[in-house]
Amino acid sequence: ALGLAACGKSEQQAAPAAPAVQTGLPSIQWRMTSSFPKSVDTLFGSAEMLANRLREITDGKFDIRIFPAGEIVPGLQALDAVQQGTVEMCHTCSYYYVGKDKTFAFGTAVPFGLNARQMDAWIIAGGGQELLDEFYSNYNIYSFLGGNTGVQMGGWYRKQINSLEDIKGLKIRIAGIAGEILARMGAIPQQLAGPDVYPALEKGTIDAAEWVAPYDDEKLGFHKVAPNYYAPGWWEPGPVVHFYVNKTEWDKLPKEYQAAFRTASREAHILMTASYDHKNPQALARLLSQGVKLQTFSNEIMKRGYEVSQELYAEEAAKNPAWAKIYAEFEKYRRAQNAWFGVAEGSYDRFMQTIR
Amino acid sequence: ALGLAACGKSEQQAAPAAPAVQTGLPSIQWRMTSSFPKSVDTLFGSAEMLANRLREITDGKFDIRIFPAGEIVPGLQALDAVQQGTVEMCHTCSYYYVGKDKTFAFGTAVPFGLNARQMDAWIIAGGGQELLDEFYSNYNIYSFLGGNTGVQMGGWYRKQINSLEDIKGLKIRIAGIAGEILARMGAIPQQLAGPDVYPALEKGTIDAAEWVAPYDDEKLGFHKVAPNYYAPGWWEPGPVVHFYVNKTEWDKLPKEYQAAFRTASREAHILMTASYDHKNPQALARLLSQGVKLQTFSNEIMKRGYEVSQELYAEEAAKNPAWAKIYAEFEKYRRAQNAWFGVAEGSYDRFMQTIR
Repeated sequence: ALGLAACGKSEQQAAPAAPAVQTGLPSIQWRMTSSFPKSVDTLFGSAEMLANRLREITDGKFDIRIFPAGEIVPGLQALDAVQQGTVEMCHTCSYYYVGKDKTFAFGTAVPFGLNARQMDAWIIAGGGQELLDEFYSNYNIYSFLGGNTGVQMGGWYRKQINSLEDIKGLKIRIAGIAGEILARMGAIPQQLAGPDVYPALEKGTIDAAEWVAPYDDEKLGFHKVAPNYYAPGWWEPGPVVHFYVNKTEWDKLPKEYQAAFRTASREAHILMTASYDHKNPQALARLLSQGVKLQTFSNEIMKRGYEVSQELYAEEAAKNPAWAKIYAEFEKYRRAQNAWFGVAEGSYDRFMQTIR
Repeated sequence: ALGLAACGKSEQQAAPAAPAVQTGLPSIQWRMTSSFPKSVDTLFGSAEMLANRLREITDGKFDIRIFPAGEIVPGLQALDAVQQGTVEMCHTCSYYYVGKDKTFAFGTAVPFGLNARQMDAWIIAGGGQELLDEFYSNYNIYSFLGGNTGVQMGGWYRKQINSLEDIKGLKIRIAGIAGEILARMGAIPQQLAGPDVYPALEKGTIDAAEWVAPYDDEKLGFHKVAPNYYAPGWWEPGPVVHFYVNKTEWDKLPKEYQAAFRTASREAHILMTASYDHKNPQALARLLSQGVKLQTFSNEIMKRGYEVSQELYAEEAAKNPAWAKIYAEFEKYRRAQNAWFGVAEGSYDRFMQTIR
């Protein structure tokens, strides 16, 4: 999961000195509230890249200061802060806001949804951006791609989970739609704040916890108390992180700054995936050397999860027109994408993953 | 393959009028020669996006005009034109220049190399850019990511290719290192200009031809004369397209334009993959409805191709220090990447490709 919001304080960033260059473009200061603490460096870092690049392009005139989760507002209130104009923008995950409307999940990830490349195809080239924008307009925001972690891991389990029987009664720290699906499968989802997860897992108050993937997971040490590390995180196949911008503030930007922002957000987007893909293999190797037991969810579990997710999505479509509209397109897209990805990407990857 | 260079003439683009805005930044006109004709719209389009975005960011002052292959120089001479300063930059594929030095292949693709996401990880976060830059500095250029097609297809075959025996004597239109590997496997690689491929395939002068993937392949109609469409294109698992910039011209740019160029090239990079991923499934569906027989290379063929490629790479490493230096890092990276991608991405993708 990207459930990483924290409330730690950290020092403010020094604002760069305003240059004295005489040009036609205004000096603009924005504040970005992040849903992430600085310690989650790969997530946080892509926002820093965006801000740095915009200062470089504009000789410091378009200056965005980033505030870690909790400095201005808590991580999970980033959307509200942007919607209300408390800050001009935020770096967050759409699916943190499924409590307002489940439709928010499509922007980041739905269980058994698109992988990272497929999300890019849908959002950039397949009409997804337009569908999401229409939905987001109810919240006074524009959205921009701001990162993707790739397929996450399925979490840390004290005991092996082999069959659907093993899911029954499983106390797992998990939130959102994934939690609803696991509950329908018999698990007992738990809501715990970040710092409470490790002790709960250690004492056995919970049986399992899911987080992100090797690089972020390793820091939290879950492997010491729950050595079974499951793949894949079928509830987060290609989770997108977003920059949300207040509409009024965006519309006030010179068009040059709008263009610079658009393009720099794409660079931040790709940087996050590349960074995770670079760091995760190394972290996984370290974890395995410490006795972590790498496991794969059985086909029985995956299949039941898939069936339950389809039921839940159909129910939501019947009562939520916003969900229904996006889901219809998303679902078609997923099927077409996987038909193609199974041909060239799939056959190549399968070979390369076995030949080594 | 991205062997798409053509020599067709097309109308020049109209240069936008220079704005009269008074700012501190200079008006700069560059010429970009493309290795591609306009008809290959997904490839060509990412260069257009770069130029458009830079005009938007700079209010038209940084103005890059794009010339399709053949207007200034032939597509395969793009590097030379940039190196010599005939044009300031080009849009091309590194592996077109393996005739100068095989090391050029690493920038785009080597058979059984990294897939698209892994190339991003290596180049953006894993030290690949620095290794490539060191090599490219011999050619007076800087390189920037400028697109990726994803895993290509293995081409069109008049007859089924089931065993290594079927490769013997196979006349296949293919170039570069892939051609060398197939030759060692007993095939007879053919060099044919683009327009000559279809008639040769129709008459049976050649038995097979490889091109790109469904969206580009469909336009050429190979399926009408060679209905067996093989996956995967193991010689092009994540081919990167590049923007090469003349070093002297780059160093003359204001730092604001350099920053804008860097970031816009990343947007162009991601646009190409998203566009191909969006278009290929639709094209594949159309092709299948016309009787195309989708085939997968047998494990026997893939495995022999892999072995031969490793032999060839080791031989090159023994005689070419530039290759040896990059290959050592690339090879380590590939193994680590596939170890990780087999866990989360692989297990998820395999499930999704079968559940539909």
